[in-house]
Amino acid sequence: MDESLILAQKALESANEAKFIANNIWMLMATVLVFMMHLGFATLEAGFVRRKNVVNILFKNIMIVSVGLLSYYTIGFGLMYPGVEGGYFEFGGFGLTNPEGAAGMIDYASGNYTYYTDFIFQAMFAATCCTIVSGAVAERVKLLPFLVFCLLFVTISYPITGYWKWGAGWLDALGFYDFAGSTLVHSVGGWGALAGAILVGPRLGKYTKKGIKPIPGHSMPLATVGVFLLWFGWFGFNGGSVLSADPGLVSLVFVTTAVAAAAGCIGAFVISKLVYRSFDLGIALNGILGGLVGITASADGVSVVSAIIIGLVAGAIIPLSISFFDKIKVDDPVGATSVHLVCGIWGTIAVAIFGNYDEGVGTLSAQLIGIAAIGVFTFTFAFVVFFVLKKVVGVRVDKEEETIGLDICEHQATAYS
Amino acid sequence: MDESLILAQKALESANEAKFIANNIWMLMATVLVFMMHLGFATLEAGFVRRKNVVNILFKNIMIVSVGLLSYYTIGFGLMYPGVEGGYFEFGGFGLTNPEGAAGMIDYASGNYTYYTDFIFQAMFAATCCTIVSGAVAERVKLLPFLVFCLLFVTISYPITGYWKWGAGWLDALGFYDFAGSTLVHSVGGWGALAGAILVGPRLGKYTKKGIKPIPGHSMPLATVGVFLLWFGWFGFNGGSVLSADPGLVSLVFVTTAVAAAAGCIGAFVISKLVYRSFDLGIALNGILGGLVGITASADGVSVVSAIIIGLVAGAIIPLSISFFDKIKVDDPVGATSVHLVCGIWGTIAVAIFGNYDEGVGTLSAQLIGIAAIGVFTFTFAFVVFFVLKKVVGVRVDKEEETIGLDICEHQATAYS
Amino acid sequence: MDESLILAQKALESANEAKFIANNIWMLMATVLVFMMHLGFATLEAGFVRRKNVVNILFKNIMIVSVGLLSYYTIGFGLMYPGVEGGYFEFGGFGLTNPEGAAGMIDYASGNYTYYTDFIFQAMFAATCCTIVSGAVAERVKLLPFLVFCLLFVTISYPITGYWKWGAGWLDALGFYDFAGSTLVHSVGGWGALAGAILVGPRLGKYTKKGIKPIPGHSMPLATVGVFLLWFGWFGFNGGSVLSADPGLVSLVFVTTAVAAAAGCIGAFVISKLVYRSFDLGIALNGILGGLVGITASADGVSVVSAIIIGLVAGAIIPLSISFFDKIKVDDPVGATSVHLVCGIWGTIAVAIFGNYDEGVGTLSAQLIGIAAIGVFTFTFAFVVFFVLKKVVGVRVDKEEETIGLDICEHQATAYS
Repeated sequence: MDESLILAQKALESANEAKFIANNIWMLMATVLVFMMHLGFATLEAGFVRRKNVVNILFKNIMIVSVGLLSYYTIGFGLMYPGVEGGYFEFGGFGLTNPEGAAGMIDYASGNYTYYTDFIFQAMFAATCCTIVSGAVAERVKLLPFLVFCLLFVTISYPITGYWKWGAGWLDALGFYDFAGSTLVHSVGGWGALAGAILVGPRLGKYTKKGIKPIPGHSMPLATVGVFLLWFGWFGFNGGSVLSADPGLVSLVFVTTAVAAAAGCIGAFVISKLVYRSFDLGIALNGILGGLVGITASADGVSVVSAIIIGLVAGAIIPLSISFFDKIKVDDPVGATSVHLVCGIWGTIAVAIFGNYDEGVGTLSAQLIGIAAIGVFTFTFAFVVFFVLKKVVGVRVDKEEETIGLDICEHQATAYS
Repeated sequence: MDESLILAQKALESANEAKFIANNIWMLMATVLVFMMHLGFATLEAGFVRRKNVVNILFKNIMIVSVGLLSYYTIGFGLMYPGVEGGYFEFGGFGLTNPEGAAGMIDYASGNYTYYTDFIFQAMFAATCCTIVSGAVAERVKLLPFLVFCLLFVTISYPITGYWKWGAGWLDALGFYDFAGSTLVHSVGGWGALAGAILVGPRLGKYTKKGIKPIPGHSMPLATVGVFLLWFGWFGFNGGSVLSADPGLVSLVFVTTAVAAAAGCIGAFVISKLVYRSFDLGIALNGILGGLVGITASADGVSVVSAIIIGLVAGAIIPLSISFFDKIKVDDPVGATSVHLVCGIWGTIAVAIFGNYDEGVGTLSAQLIGIAAIGVFTFTFAFVVFFVLKKVVGVRVDKEEETIGLDICEHQATAYS
Repeated sequence: MDESLILAQKALESANEAKFIANNIWMLMATVLVFMMHLGFATLEAGFVRRKNVVNILFKNIMIVSVGLLSYYTIGFGLMYPGVEGGYFEFGGFGLTNPEGAAGMIDYASGNYTYYTDFIFQAMFAATCCTIVSGAVAERVKLLPFLVFCLLFVTISYPITGYWKWGAGWLDALGFYDFAGSTLVHSVGGWGALAGAILVGPRLGKYTKKGIKPIPGHSMPLATVGVFLLWFGWFGFNGGSVLSADPGLVSLVFVTTAVAAAAGCIGAFVISKLVYRSFDLGIALNGILGGLVGITASADGVSVVSAIIIGLVAGAIIPLSISFFDKIKVDDPVGATSVHLVCGIWGTIAVAIFGNYDEGVGTLSAQLIGIAAIGVFTFTFAFVVFFVLKKVVGVRVDKEEETIGLDICEHQATAYS
């Protein structure tokens, strides 16, 4: 009996270790997929700007990832996941403070993945919110002030609102639900984008007395590559947000994510064909992204049919929202506010309409409170930072530089030669 | 004794759960890799067409993925995997009809992956066959009729022939073997491409009295990116077709897939150097794809040396086949018929020559019957659909539009500005 | 008692099988990620060369992967991992000689992955060293002699020095440590690049009486895509070098790899801003790569803070090293010697400074001996091969061809049309 008991215990330990390894692999693969989203954003934004501002937007994107990873490591992670209960502005400490020994890592997060895995997955998410902003203020924002904004946004603003929900803060206690971040990541980026676009102002020649002038991007292949890479990465963004390799949940998330993206494309296609009478590639691409942002809050808790509806609506919103922002003269070269802010809000509300969650989780009131609280905080934070930067050092290049292009003026280089 | 028995049972359950998690992760990662093939096709085709038709081909590619995913969900999946025995045109129902509860998912497919995983992996495959067609009819096909063709092709034709083999239909019973779809996916796409290219007709100025005019693609970097992404994705296409993470089989498939692609490159390189006296990048790229298509039917059942031979032959076929189709004036801007149809047939025959399968599986007669049956069905289906569309609404843009380019005429846009 | 003992044994076997499956999946995913680095190199190099040499560099890159995989299969793998003890030039045989039966595969490498997995992961690494060379000699090297060099380099030189450490040869016995190949892969490529750049000579018009003329690359978006893809692939390059899915080690490697890359970007940014007063995208991109090369030798054995320091220094080295090579008139269009050779040496020394390894492993003397021995062997090998090729067939295109461009002269094609 002794022998078989010892063997059985050994077998159980070994089995649990195998599950741990498998879960951890999935979280790391999800991390790699989310990393790819940064290339997705870089190429999407590069494709949607004019030829004269391409080096600048690429430069901004690699700096954002780099600054984001290091500052989230230094402060952001400790702020977002303080590991203590209660409080609005707890701080878990600089750097990685949890026990770093093998045992500490193995027991981390209910045995699903290590502490390092947790950090690197979260860090890949964090940098995303700034990348969203960079698209909206592209082609006229000054490089260094923008990087200062990014540093503050990813180090302070994003972790605080993130903590409210994912760090088990007050919104979590309230029943607010946001699976992978329609609000916590995308709307947060979107609010920053809106504040930035307002304070930086529209590009020269965009809104004239003769009307709104379309300023087409310089490379549709680059933009298309970007959207496909974002879709690719989103399987990790949503799939990894299960926080384990749970087969039922992760595979459901894959299906809802994929069909919502596809439906977003169709929704944008149909509306832009009906309303604007064109097969607009840019709109269809943003429709895919809208569908992805829309499903992000509820990818783990809706039926496939619901996911299709969420995506269709998100896609249909895109052309209308882009027109709306143009009407109120908020110039956003890549449509980031429509995709991330508006569809992010839609997705967060959709939780209350379509979500199959526990009683009291994801109620309409909780969702609206979460959207409002995070919106007010983030927009205010971003507005104040941009406003102060504007007054102190200026956030916009001068007219001559804007006309010549940021590549020549800020980088003494051209994207193509 | 009781205690150790209970513990041993618990350990065994836990171990089986770990295997299930690991297998499911692999199938989902394979799904993500196959998804990337859609970006591969999009960039390959965009690179191989002229500058004036780039927006159009990109637009088609995102629509195909989106339409493909949704229509395969709605009808195709139920048609291809009816889950019943016998019959040619069984139908498993609309949408996902299997038990969606946790238990139902866990027990699905011998415990290797969930029902959702099965669907999403298959759905990523399904859209591929239309993407193959889009390359062959590029630069002159009308957008909406082509999308109607895709819808019918992916919803009806592909699932029916797929069912014959992978849905345990009559070709499966006959001993026909096609591991990951040299015939079921690639030749199917290739037959559609051939039917489309014939009925749409060659591009203006391609075949003149003075001979065949080469029409070079507008961007070789884009085309190269496409081929690398397709190769990347093929590790999931073939590796996922093991339908579990079986270490021996999946790793063998990785090796055979990689060396066949490499050998395809060398085969195409050597023949094009010997016969056409040039280092032709486009031919070498298509040689890689030919090698990949060729190994797809037998990647799980040939030796490494056999895989190299299969790849070499497939690569060598490419320049000869491209010349052949040009001689019979079937204009295919990206070489899709040579890559997917001709090398698909070669790969399916190679099963009978090199494959190490059970007695009665993959015999030459079974392979030839499979190739013929699926070829006749698919070509007829595609021909009839294109023919009806041609008669009813037309499938080709008018000469002026073709000369100006589809980007301006169908999308009022340009790919670059 | 019998029953529970049998069940416990079955459970243990099942658990071990699950671990084996999970480990093997990770190694295969790492393989796929490393494969993507070849596209990274292809796009990076294509972006950094002039428009007239793009087809040529793309052609070289697909040939290198293809030739590399096949020749490493045929000879290199047997040379690098002879599977016997002692000796400098053992040879394990042509092709894959280990037992290929299911049992043999399962027991391979302590049960972490199969023999096929081992081969394909190593084969993906092998081709990398030639790709590094191709960047340094771009825009003027003759195609066929360069491919002959690659064949010899990947079949003979790389496996021999690789065997010294990873094949358990004399450097391994000495305590030399190089986790994933700062020296064994990157410096080896870098020494080849240096030998090639010296013997091929600088591009026409690079070093003139009026000073050093910058020759900007033709597409910064392509170069940026390349760096992101290399970073993406490096998670597999370093993460897979753990040679299992060990959660603690692989996740630590992810974190150190990511922060070193980010710090490399910042280091290069700061130095190039301070010293050269510019926001140079090319420098920042190479800073990321420098950080990645730098951390490669010690990613599994340094703290996160150490990884940041290693990356910062590596990044700071980049602009200085590029200036240095320009001063001594070694023309390297993509900065491969600075990135792979200089940062590779730095990373190998950093093992002795920051590494937490067992007593006697990674001592400064062992590291310096390893750097020197591999450097002398590789540089000599590469120099001799290039020298002989230069004398016998020539390694450089003539002036007219260089002026017109290799695309037209060697391929009768253009990259864009």
